Amino acid sequence: MGNILVVYYSQTGNTRRMAELVAEGASQPGHDVRLRDIAEATGEDALWADGMAVGSPTWMGGPAWPMKRWWDETIIKAWGKLDGKIGCAFSSQGGLSGGAELTCLNLILLMMNYGLLTFGVPDYAGKRTTLHYGPTSVRLPETEDDQAACRLLGQRLAQWVAVMADGDATRHPRFAKKT
Amino acid sequence: MGNILVVYYSQTGNTRRMAELVAEGASQPGHDVRLRDIAEATGEDALWADGMAVGSPTWMGGPAWPMKRWWDETIIKAWGKLDGKIGCAFSSQGGLSGGAELTCLNLILLMMNYGLLTFGVPDYAGKRTTLHYGPTSVRLPETEDDQAACRLLGQRLAQWVAVMADGDATRHPRFAKKT
Amino acid sequence: MGNILVVYYSQTGNTRRMAELVAEGASQPGHDVRLRDIAEATGEDALWADGMAVGSPTWMGGPAWPMKRWWDETIIKAWGKLDGKIGCAFSSQGGLSGGAELTCLNLILLMMNYGLLTFGVPDYAGKRTTLHYGPTSVRLPETEDDQAACRLLGQRLAQWVAVMADGDATRHPRFAKKT
Amino acid sequence: MGNILVVYYSQTGNTRRMAELVAEGASQPGHDVRLRDIAEATGEDALWADGMAVGSPTWMGGPAWPMKRWWDETIIKAWGKLDGKIGCAFSSQGGLSGGAELTCLNLILLMMNYGLLTFGVPDYAGKRTTLHYGPTSVRLPETEDDQAACRLLGQRLAQWVAVMADGDATRHPRFAKKT
Repeated sequence: MGNILVVYYSQTGNTRRMAELVAEGASQPGHDVRLRDIAEATGEDALWADGMAVGSPTWMGGPAWPMKRWWDETIIKAWGKLDGKIGCAFSSQGGLSGGAELTCLNLILLMMNYGLLTFGVPDYAGKRTTLHYGPTSVRLPETEDDQAACRLLGQRLAQWVAVMADGDATRHPRFAKKT
Repeated sequence: MGNILVVYYSQTGNTRRMAELVAEGASQPGHDVRLRDIAEATGEDALWADGMAVGSPTWMGGPAWPMKRWWDETIIKAWGKLDGKIGCAFSSQGGLSGGAELTCLNLILLMMNYGLLTFGVPDYAGKRTTLHYGPTSVRLPETEDDQAACRLLGQRLAQWVAVMADGDATRHPRFAKKT
Repeated sequence: MGNILVVYYSQTGNTRRMAELVAEGASQPGHDVRLRDIAEATGEDALWADGMAVGSPTWMGGPAWPMKRWWDETIIKAWGKLDGKIGCAFSSQGGLSGGAELTCLNLILLMMNYGLLTFGVPDYAGKRTTLHYGPTSVRLPETEDDQAACRLLGQRLAQWVAVMADGDATRHPRFAKKT
Repeated sequence: MGNILVVYYSQTGNTRRMAELVAEGASQPGHDVRLRDIAEATGEDALWADGMAVGSPTWMGGPAWPMKRWWDETIIKAWGKLDGKIGCAFSSQGGLSGGAELTCLNLILLMMNYGLLTFGVPDYAGKRTTLHYGPTSVRLPETEDDQAACRLLGQRLAQWVAVMADGDATRHPRFAKKT
């Protein structure tokens, strides 16, 4: 069984809605999922998790400062102890080309700094929607495809956690084939 | 009078269409605009320009390799001589969240390396469309807003060129006010 | 005459020392230079400036959260009003390959979001030291070359401000030649 | 047993030397290591590998174009089939602050696009040297610390491969403790 943390900051509710969809996608048999606002998420949550999805609105082309503070201060005692856990990112933004990919990139850099293994998803969640560095959404994820992208991120995270933390290679297509 | 170069690489025609729209936006009275495929663009074009907009499709989350080669090899004699010219970027991609912002970012890093002053646009080109790091498009820029974003990039580039290269401060809102 | 703001966050004094050197380099005849800790810097300072250099320590591979908050909240009323001002970045870090280039990159993205024209410096400040995306320093800038890189950033900023804000093209080598 | 590919592009030999040190660090009991110039590395090598370290010199603030072409064209049939393999990056540059961190970042983005799990290393390889996003070197890795950073990258890669591909949790400190 693997432990999955979906942790987010949200002021308007847009990123929170994405987080709920990611958590929904991650809720696969045998996994324990915690959905947490950073106001309540602690270093203990991060240590508990085998994998985490991290979401922030895009503010000025990057993660909102409260999210940055969470990594800089709140969970700093976990630094170097998250080594090898699995992480991924998502972000909402005010408009297309508004910087949400850059926010995902920055969340990934934060996780790499802590030692996590990070990933994006090559697959498409719809005909014109992918999540190569994490799903992005203009405000609320309203279209089917935007929502599917969030769920797919959670699902893929759950698969990697199964392979990595459980050593259950049958849980992921690539490893299943290999085995 | 200012010189503007819109230079692009395009395999499918998507980025070329963006380039045409950027050139259209840049074609303001008193400016000379060159629209060039990198197959024909030379270091002389780069030296001639007071400002340039650079476009590439997003391949694997970054500029297509022929565009990278153009900077690495084709115009390398212009390195250090483009100092202070003005540059901006645009990119097409296969799907939303496909990396086009990251391609813009990389084009900007290339220009910074050569010494250009680079910019994005805070304004919105439509209710849900901006171009903070350059306009992006999923395949062809088909919507009004996607097209407006490309034109706005060209227009803003022309304004900066007027201020910077011509010293004509009346050509840009901010400087006009100041004067 | 141009106005230059050197604004920084510093906890240990390392980034402050870099800021002092940048301010020293920017202090050229006819320029007015303000050196400000973000604890005291306001939106008015940003509006006053024709050019700004922004420095932060590298925390977890990016700008320290108080610096992010400064852009997200403190000076938010200046958003969209800094259009066309000139900006550049610098950062100190705990060790080589510690993320200081990524911090510079993020500071540049913040400035682009606000509408500033941003730049790096192609020149070398020493045989093995450049500042292509802004100078970086491991802890205090102790070597001659590290210090020269900081001064060079300030000097180049002052030159661009002279060209851009004053329309005094004779102040920068490239434009001087052209004129 | 895990398969490790160290793949690099090198014109001057600087990045090749880094690659040799990474391969040395990765050569742990039970692992099979291939050291390959991209001129000879194929998609088959990438498919064979459980983990890969990718190195490029920094050209104009990013990976050299032949390295980009390798991902864009040479191994394109492997796209989407490298899902879940483990990847990391390294780069040499002409001078400090020359963009090598940005090159590592771009190599990581390329790997994420292909579906790899990517990582950096929180640990320090020396008092003033880390490799948070991969080791970087000014020209040849000549100091003890620069060389230690390269070896540490290879060693960490080998550990992750052991955990992930072999399911041998005893091979990595974190998982060993847990088990």
